[in-house]
Amino acid sequence: MAAEPKESPSNNPGLHTTRDEATKGYIMQQTMFRIKDPKVSLDFYSRVLGMSLLKRLDFPEMKFSLYFLGYEDTASAPGNPEDRTVWTFGRPATIELTHNWGTESDPEFKGYHNGNSEPRGFGHIGITVDDTYKACERFEHLGVEFVKKPDDGKMKGIAFIKDPDGYWIEIFDLKTIGKVGGSAA
Amino acid sequence: MAAEPKESPSNNPGLHTTRDEATKGYIMQQTMFRIKDPKVSLDFYSRVLGMSLLKRLDFPEMKFSLYFLGYEDTASAPGNPEDRTVWTFGRPATIELTHNWGTESDPEFKGYHNGNSEPRGFGHIGITVDDTYKACERFEHLGVEFVKKPDDGKMKGIAFIKDPDGYWIEIFDLKTIGKVGGSAA
Repeated sequence: MAAEPKESPSNNPGLHTTRDEATKGYIMQQTMFRIKDPKVSLDFYSRVLGMSLLKRLDFPEMKFSLYFLGYEDTASAPGNPEDRTVWTFGRPATIELTHNWGTESDPEFKGYHNGNSEPRGFGHIGITVDDTYKACERFEHLGVEFVKKPDDGKMKGIAFIKDPDGYWIEIFDLKTIGKVGGSAA
Repeated sequence: MAAEPKESPSNNPGLHTTRDEATKGYIMQQTMFRIKDPKVSLDFYSRVLGMSLLKRLDFPEMKFSLYFLGYEDTASAPGNPEDRTVWTFGRPATIELTHNWGTESDPEFKGYHNGNSEPRGFGHIGITVDDTYKACERFEHLGVEFVKKPDDGKMKGIAFIKDPDGYWIEIFDLKTIGKVGGSAA
């Protein structure tokens, strides 16, 4: 008899495996974090990480803008602005960068908190790449700051880089993640 | 002549629209945040939000566990634990809940920081639902805590709920999001 997988309800109190019909069609659509300077962040997420700008929304009365980025082909995005909003919110796995106007030029602005020092909470986003070592060589070449290089520490083949605001981004590939997780599987 | 869309590079300094070949195949795979009690969070994300537990990884030496959840059918997940790890890390749009052992029963544990009070940073995750009002009626019925109900404030048709640790989750649907974004489009 096969052992119950670690993910079974009997091993995970609280877990429900029968999905409520009411939740059918739900999409994990966005992860929002605040950024100091859109020029710097757009450059990083598009040039370094290869994301596209799916949608920009400006709220002049409240003095902020939202930038939705993700791994989507914007060639298929509708031309009409309202339709493009709907299109964007129908895509999973986007990041939403919130820019409160003025932070980019405010000498008093202290920067945002990345959640990995006290008080802790949010930790990071994570990107699956084709090859962690190759990707990290390129990041190094592009001057990206590292929290952990792939061969630092115990978990070989996993890296953490920083975005321009200091948020952590985990980098891994499918060739090595099985082994990394293996001891913990 | 059609106006340049708001998302064009000419309107967005820093933005690159030619994707570097090196980034082809990149996936926005995970959003990690720390949780106090997996029993409570697994219940919330599976029963209330309809997510599945894709993978669990335990690290006894470092006394923490990771729970990957998302909108995936685990019927297609491989049975072998290592293969299941690889399968999970190949899925986009997962959440990764980190449980540092003991917080769930530690009377001294003060809870995690959701990023929306000082020091700010991370804001929320967002779920696209079929119908915001219908979804929020159900959430209310299930005793979910609200930050903003759909008709509160200016942005009608958008809600914010709290997960068990106080992290914010935005709730919207494709029927109304175009209008909400419309004034800002």
